[in-house]
Amino acid sequence: MIYKSEIKHLYSLKQKKYRKKTGEFLIEGTRIITSALESVSFLKTIFITEHFKNSNSSKHVLDKIKKGDIPLKIIDEQTMKIFTDTENPSGISALCPLPELKLNINDFIGPGLFLDAISDPGNLGTICRTTAWFGVQNVILSPNCVDPFNPKVVRAGMGAHFHLNFYNISLKDLSENNYEIIGAGASGIPIHEFKQQNKKNWILVLGNEAHGISKENQALLNETISIPKYGAGESLNVAISAGILLSFFVYSSTK
Amino acid sequence: MIYKSEIKHLYSLKQKKYRKKTGEFLIEGTRIITSALESVSFLKTIFITEHFKNSNSSKHVLDKIKKGDIPLKIIDEQTMKIFTDTENPSGISALCPLPELKLNINDFIGPGLFLDAISDPGNLGTICRTTAWFGVQNVILSPNCVDPFNPKVVRAGMGAHFHLNFYNISLKDLSENNYEIIGAGASGIPIHEFKQQNKKNWILVLGNEAHGISKENQALLNETISIPKYGAGESLNVAISAGILLSFFVYSSTK
Repeated sequence: MIYKSEIKHLYSLKQKKYRKKTGEFLIEGTRIITSALESVSFLKTIFITEHFKNSNSSKHVLDKIKKGDIPLKIIDEQTMKIFTDTENPSGISALCPLPELKLNINDFIGPGLFLDAISDPGNLGTICRTTAWFGVQNVILSPNCVDPFNPKVVRAGMGAHFHLNFYNISLKDLSENNYEIIGAGASGIPIHEFKQQNKKNWILVLGNEAHGISKENQALLNETISIPKYGAGESLNVAISAGILLSFFVYSSTK
Repeated sequence: MIYKSEIKHLYSLKQKKYRKKTGEFLIEGTRIITSALESVSFLKTIFITEHFKNSNSSKHVLDKIKKGDIPLKIIDEQTMKIFTDTENPSGISALCPLPELKLNINDFIGPGLFLDAISDPGNLGTICRTTAWFGVQNVILSPNCVDPFNPKVVRAGMGAHFHLNFYNISLKDLSENNYEIIGAGASGIPIHEFKQQNKKNWILVLGNEAHGISKENQALLNETISIPKYGAGESLNVAISAGILLSFFVYSSTK
């Protein structure tokens, strides 16, 4: 049984201000919910459709939900469509507590990505997914980044959100705390020639899709690295750049 | 002056069957149109709004259009909105001849990407952008890939379409013509340990977002390579994988 007021509440979570006000966000799809169930995160309520309950792919996740003793509500497909974000909802969604963005430099340890005004939700989500894959756990967002708990970011993140820490810390604070600040830019050291000095306390800075890294943050970079062009184009997509740079960082550390 | 029948025609190009029937497709945005003007491609007609004409960012592209002697039509914003694909049209779009997908193995030379049932337009477009950046000019599409001239693919490609050749050739044909067929998969040789034998005649195969490379094509792989996981997640996004693998291929060739 689901009340109209609850549907309205779930629908409102599409907006950042309601997520902030209520301290909740919504996730959807089997892969993301499985990822949440496998992490230390907890889920408040899970919603499934009758069709999902009877589908072949549901058994694995339903077993996990049972084990986790999480409240489960069966709702009809029309209701699910109201508050979920995809055109063809997968039949499962869940209400989660919203992690707090950490604000204090003293809470920060180890390497991380600093995202300077990333504006496309798909890009931010894909960057999160890639960062988690390479075992880098910290994502620092400038104040003008898209919200990491926007439904499109969460969907593109594919569960990475449950393995990452999100911060709102200035690059200046990180710089003053002896992190090596490495910016991605067109005119930097080619990535395959770059020798990373500090294998632990580095911050990789990626700039806005159209305007790159802000002037203010440019001034704080210790180094700039680039992904040289061998063909055509004005630039690479920012998530692609993040993936290439992280892969070089991580694999050169393991050599 | 633009006629209703022309608007209807331009609108119909959102659909693959009309693109195929008329041999035309539509591009939009300053960056993509600049890229087309700088390549050998030619544009049939360019449409701009009055607002675009008077904007600061238009001078560079308008000069190029003048030099190219391309028919230019000034239309109102409402009309532009009807046939373009973005929520906030940039004020410039253009009608282009649709390149033919090459079908004959004898027309194929050099390295390329083989895309096995890539279904997301954003992924295909980003893969095109990345492939062009790394100077690989050939993109081979399995019959069940999303159409490369779908407006969302073209937009994510950011002009790469004018620097690439598109093919519909089977992997079997490529394999029989002595190309080294390298598949991306979870259980392959780690990319940073992989020694590419054939620096020219390789084909990198990337599989569908949910199901990977088809069984039929798996059987044709000479090698499988992987991007090892150091953290969390079920997989990487396919465009991110393409970027990382291509960067290793290209930079190891330059050493």
